[in-house]
Amino acid sequence: MIAYVNNTFVDEADATIGIGDLAIQRGYGVFDFFRTINFTPLFPDDYLDRFFRSAALLRIAPLHTKSEIIDIIAEMSGRNGIADAAFRMILTGGYSSDGYSPVSPNFMIIQQPIQMADDNDFERGLKIILHEYMRDLPEAKSINYLIGIYLKERILQQNADDVLYYYDGAVLEFPRSNVFIVTKDKTVVTPGKNVLAGITRMKVLEIAKQQYKTEQRMVTVEDLKNAAEVFLTSTTKRILPVVNIDDIIVSDGVPGEVTRSLYNDFLTMEKQIVSQKHTLPVAE
Amino acid sequence: MIAYVNNTFVDEADATIGIGDLAIQRGYGVFDFFRTINFTPLFPDDYLDRFFRSAALLRIAPLHTKSEIIDIIAEMSGRNGIADAAFRMILTGGYSSDGYSPVSPNFMIIQQPIQMADDNDFERGLKIILHEYMRDLPEAKSINYLIGIYLKERILQQNADDVLYYYDGAVLEFPRSNVFIVTKDKTVVTPGKNVLAGITRMKVLEIAKQQYKTEQRMVTVEDLKNAAEVFLTSTTKRILPVVNIDDIIVSDGVPGEVTRSLYNDFLTMEKQIVSQKHTLPVAE
Repeated sequence: MIAYVNNTFVDEADATIGIGDLAIQRGYGVFDFFRTINFTPLFPDDYLDRFFRSAALLRIAPLHTKSEIIDIIAEMSGRNGIADAAFRMILTGGYSSDGYSPVSPNFMIIQQPIQMADDNDFERGLKIILHEYMRDLPEAKSINYLIGIYLKERILQQNADDVLYYYDGAVLEFPRSNVFIVTKDKTVVTPGKNVLAGITRMKVLEIAKQQYKTEQRMVTVEDLKNAAEVFLTSTTKRILPVVNIDDIIVSDGVPGEVTRSLYNDFLTMEKQIVSQKHTLPVAE
Repeated sequence: MIAYVNNTFVDEADATIGIGDLAIQRGYGVFDFFRTINFTPLFPDDYLDRFFRSAALLRIAPLHTKSEIIDIIAEMSGRNGIADAAFRMILTGGYSSDGYSPVSPNFMIIQQPIQMADDNDFERGLKIILHEYMRDLPEAKSINYLIGIYLKERILQQNADDVLYYYDGAVLEFPRSNVFIVTKDKTVVTPGKNVLAGITRMKVLEIAKQQYKTEQRMVTVEDLKNAAEVFLTSTTKRILPVVNIDDIIVSDGVPGEVTRSLYNDFLTMEKQIVSQKHTLPVAE
C-alpha cells in the first residue's frame, strides 16, 4: 500500500516521521478521514473543508491546497487500486525547536481498508454508557483521543458498545460519532454546540429535513432518556440505533421507525452518488 | 546526538517511528523528563517511577525495566558527552491494528540541551493568567498538550508568562509546572488533587517542611488571590515567584521572603547532590 508523507509517495511500511514531531512530543495534530465506495469518494469537499478548519483552529498552516490534496489522493487511488477504502489525512505540529510551538507541519495520507457497520449492526442496535466529559476544542478534529481510548476498558466491563459524553447537563457526542434523538412528536434533534461538525451528521440533517422537523440545540440528559428514538452517526457507522443507555431501554429495545427511514434514505443517497461515477482513478 | 528508539541507538536525525503509531494517530502516549548537572542526574528514580505510573494509568506496558532504562541512559550519556542536559523518555500506544487500542509501545529516549531559568528570572517574577481547565487524567504525564499549546497565543496577547488552570473553583496547575501559595501565616500550600505529582513539587515540599508548616489541599481561586506569596515549580524552572495574576499584583510585585528561602535551599540541595558525584558516564 502506498502512503504519502510530506512531498513523497512511499510504501506504507516505510512511512515514518522523526520523533521530534509535535504529535509524538505533545499529541498536537489534526486529521480527517473519508471513504470511497467503488472508487467514488463520499463528500470529499466537506471532509477537506473540515480538515482545513481543524488545522486553522490549531494554528497549523497546511502544506497543500485542497485541490493538491485531491490530486495526491487520486494518484494514491490509482496506485493502490482499492475500491472500498478510507483515506486518512494527518497534519501535525511539526519539528518544533522548543518542543512546544507548532511550526511547519508534517503531512501524511494513508489509505486503509474500512470496516463498515452493516444491516445486522443496525438491527441489533447499540448499548451505550454515559460519561461526563467535553473534548478539548470540540469543533476541531484533533488527534487527542486520550479519554476515548482510556474509557474502552469501562465500555468493555459494562458490556456496552460505546460511550456518550455529556457535560454540565448537556449531551454532546461519542468519541468518534455524533448523537441524535427523535422526540415523541418525531422532531429529529442533535446537539448544536461543543461537538464535532460531523459530515454524516450534516447529511442526515439534510435528509431528515425532507420529512421531519429538525433542530440543532441543547439536548439534556433528561431529553436523551425520554427520547422516542436515539441514534448515532459516523462515517463508518452511517446511522446506528441506540437501544440501551446505562441499562435503560430506549424505543422498546429495537430500531425506531424514524431512525429506520433515515437509514434507508441514507443508503439510497449513497447509491445515487455512486451511480454518478465521479470516481477516483481505478488503476494506473 | 545519539537517541534511542525501541532497541537501537541511532543518530537523532535518523530517529523515526512509523506513522501508524498511536501517538500520531490518536495523540496517545506518556513521557517523562529529567536533567543532569555536570553528568549527575537529578532524582532519576523519582522521575522513572512516575514514568512507570503514567504508563500504567494509560495501560501501556513498558518495553524495559527501570534499571534497563538507566543503563541505556548511561550509554547515551557516554556517547553524547553533554554535562548539563535533559533526558526525555516517550512511550506511545504503538502500531495498533484497529488504530484505537494500545498495543506493544514504541519507546524513545532523546537527550536535549536544557534551558534553565536563572536568578534573573527569579528576581523578575512571573505574570500569569487564569484559565478554567483540568487536564485529562491529570495524574498521568501524558503527551496531551492541546490546550496548553492552544493557549500560548492568549498568553502572548496578554503579555503574560504562563497560564494557571483552575477547575470548578479549585486551583490546579500550569500546563508544565505546579503551583504553590504561601499564606499570611507562612504555611506553604500546594493543590493536593487532580494535578501532576511534580518531582520538583515533591522536593520543595520536603525542603519547606524543615522550616514551615506545609499542606496539600484544595486551593481556591480566592486563596490564590489572597496569598502572601505565589510560586511555581518545575524541572527546568526550579522555583519562580508569581507576582501578577490577571493584572492583580501579588506580594507587592517582588519575590516573597518564603519563596526566596525555598529557592536558596533548593539550589543548596542541588549543589550537595552534585558534590556526591553519582555521575553517569562522562565519555566513552
